[in-house]
Amino acid sequence: MPSRPALRLITLLTDFGLQDHFVGVMKGVIASIAPEARVIDISHAVPPQQIAPARFLLDQTWPYFPKKTIHVAVVDPGVGSARRALLVEAHGQFFIAPDNGILTSFLHVSGAKTREITNSKLFLPSVSATFHGRDVFSPVAAHLAAGVPPSRVGPRIEDAFRLSSGEPQRVSKRVWHGEVAYVDRFGNLITNFDLTLFPDLATRAFVLRVGMVEIEDLAPNYASGKAGEPLALIGSHGRIEVSVNQQSAEKRLGVGLGAPVELEFYS
Amino acid sequence: MPSRPALRLITLLTDFGLQDHFVGVMKGVIASIAPEARVIDISHAVPPQQIAPARFLLDQTWPYFPKKTIHVAVVDPGVGSARRALLVEAHGQFFIAPDNGILTSFLHVSGAKTREITNSKLFLPSVSATFHGRDVFSPVAAHLAAGVPPSRVGPRIEDAFRLSSGEPQRVSKRVWHGEVAYVDRFGNLITNFDLTLFPDLATRAFVLRVGMVEIEDLAPNYASGKAGEPLALIGSHGRIEVSVNQQSAEKRLGVGLGAPVELEFYS
Amino acid sequence: MPSRPALRLITLLTDFGLQDHFVGVMKGVIASIAPEARVIDISHAVPPQQIAPARFLLDQTWPYFPKKTIHVAVVDPGVGSARRALLVEAHGQFFIAPDNGILTSFLHVSGAKTREITNSKLFLPSVSATFHGRDVFSPVAAHLAAGVPPSRVGPRIEDAFRLSSGEPQRVSKRVWHGEVAYVDRFGNLITNFDLTLFPDLATRAFVLRVGMVEIEDLAPNYASGKAGEPLALIGSHGRIEVSVNQQSAEKRLGVGLGAPVELEFYS
Repeated sequence: MPSRPALRLITLLTDFGLQDHFVGVMKGVIASIAPEARVIDISHAVPPQQIAPARFLLDQTWPYFPKKTIHVAVVDPGVGSARRALLVEAHGQFFIAPDNGILTSFLHVSGAKTREITNSKLFLPSVSATFHGRDVFSPVAAHLAAGVPPSRVGPRIEDAFRLSSGEPQRVSKRVWHGEVAYVDRFGNLITNFDLTLFPDLATRAFVLRVGMVEIEDLAPNYASGKAGEPLALIGSHGRIEVSVNQQSAEKRLGVGLGAPVELEFYS
Repeated sequence: MPSRPALRLITLLTDFGLQDHFVGVMKGVIASIAPEARVIDISHAVPPQQIAPARFLLDQTWPYFPKKTIHVAVVDPGVGSARRALLVEAHGQFFIAPDNGILTSFLHVSGAKTREITNSKLFLPSVSATFHGRDVFSPVAAHLAAGVPPSRVGPRIEDAFRLSSGEPQRVSKRVWHGEVAYVDRFGNLITNFDLTLFPDLATRAFVLRVGMVEIEDLAPNYASGKAGEPLALIGSHGRIEVSVNQQSAEKRLGVGLGAPVELEFYS
Repeated sequence: MPSRPALRLITLLTDFGLQDHFVGVMKGVIASIAPEARVIDISHAVPPQQIAPARFLLDQTWPYFPKKTIHVAVVDPGVGSARRALLVEAHGQFFIAPDNGILTSFLHVSGAKTREITNSKLFLPSVSATFHGRDVFSPVAAHLAAGVPPSRVGPRIEDAFRLSSGEPQRVSKRVWHGEVAYVDRFGNLITNFDLTLFPDLATRAFVLRVGMVEIEDLAPNYASGKAGEPLALIGSHGRIEVSVNQQSAEKRLGVGLGAPVELEFYS
């Protein structure tokens, strides 16, 4: 007797916005195929067709989800062209996306299995040239949630497209060059300086340069700075973040996504 | 022994936005009456009090939902006035909305049953003059989901309000006049030229005129045009859509909802 | 044999927005701890770090939710500082939030129990200085939903922070001074003049002054005014609301949140 399928949680990350019906339609497709699956929205406000912030959001999100969660990420400037669709198993979870680099961080993981999604029996009967979120990605995720084994989705591949690592570069003994990897809704500038690279950061003297500003201390939290004064802290992403108490650091400093950030150690 | 109710999926389409608590309150009302029902948001960003785009979204959405889904559409400029409230059964699904034309497409369907919602026992105990989404539409939907038969909602009626069909007009042997029926978040212009009207479109020579632009080819997908160049394609709605690769066609062409579109065949 | 936990509905109210992954991550944390719990979004568009509108939304929302619902409100300018976290039981429901006044209305309620959230075994293993919505509030709510008794969350306290009542002041026999307590997405101005204070309002002669406008009648609904003309009505919140038919009253009158409103009775 078959037991209830264990794969039941599906997350959605897209640049479709919530203004139109696109996300609702994806959920209808999922509910039609896997009525028991539950859907959680990560974000539908990725800047249109921007792969890097979508990758950042997915990298930050999956650790908080249970095993066997199925993550669907559709930021897809190449929809309808020859770009492939991927299913990656990694960290005990599943990741479905176009083969455009969104899944870069999972391809490297020990034990990861990458498949090209080719089994059109798992798609909607008619596949449009413009909305694979509805016609391909959602139904494949739903079939997985309903118990279809990953091996039926398509063949293993080894040459999935990878973006650069996105990690800071050490340019001299004491100087690292990084960048603003993400700007959140509050205008906080999340850099790619991960605390795992600098575990002793709190005990070292340093200067962080971003825009026209130099910051020499780590603040304990957002509320610790004077209003209007830039501060650096280890944010919830485990990275150096530049913030301005009760203001947008993005606007206050005039820098945004991709802006260079320099970290120089004095000791 | 009563079995578990089969009607369990409720969709919401409103112009309430997500800024306020209105949608959350509707979901609280539904959860109080039908704890097992699941709610899927279609959109809450319909332009305020605009019936036509709400109708478009609902027409595009229901085909992707399972039988017995209950769709609730509340764009309701006449709330608190004498306008009626409707329940329409069509396509094996249920549609609940004010009697203002949102449901026009379902009234025509073979076998459709239209009822005026009159049974105030299914409403919240106190009905406000301004928020029937909370006080009338949500509780009626929830009661249906919980097993109340449609016949208890109210009497059959035949004179529900209908908008015009919204279909293109043939103005001469070779020329059709249509319009922009919807503008999506990416600024793509979705026309009312449905492929079912022109099944051989791909093999005929034609010119599509919109704004100051003439387009003579069907592109296979959004990515196929040069950046900045307008293109026409059959979008995911099965209609002729005008798009600009990596830009907003609405902004690039300077035309929006309701703008005239002309389709002239050369053969 | 333990029965299925009865606490299963969790609502979320934050200023995190839907652009980033913050809300999705909170839902992942909840799903990991309490897979059966269901989450309903109230709003994630509270103006950043503004306590008063968050309080308004929560006060308006809980009455429509079933007993034992767990409401989580995270508008938290003091995150990472010494401010406490609270669990309040009131009205048969549960309210979780920072101790900054959001929960003021529930502290007064007869039989209410207020606890400081101190049991770090119910938090995520690592608590950041900046995202207690993920690390503290969501997991505590999920543990409650999964059956942990409220007494295990932390000790009872009596000195939770309270905001002022937010009620209008009677400044003379016939004159009350109030304010705009909330501005909704349509630009309607919801005052703090609650109908329970003036149960006979409909039968008395009065003038309501807001901005440069004086209004002397109660309209039955939004649609009853001429386009562009301000009107007052008893809105769905049971309060006097100032609205402009098919326009934003906020823009038309040039007043917003906190603006003074005067109500003078002639009889």
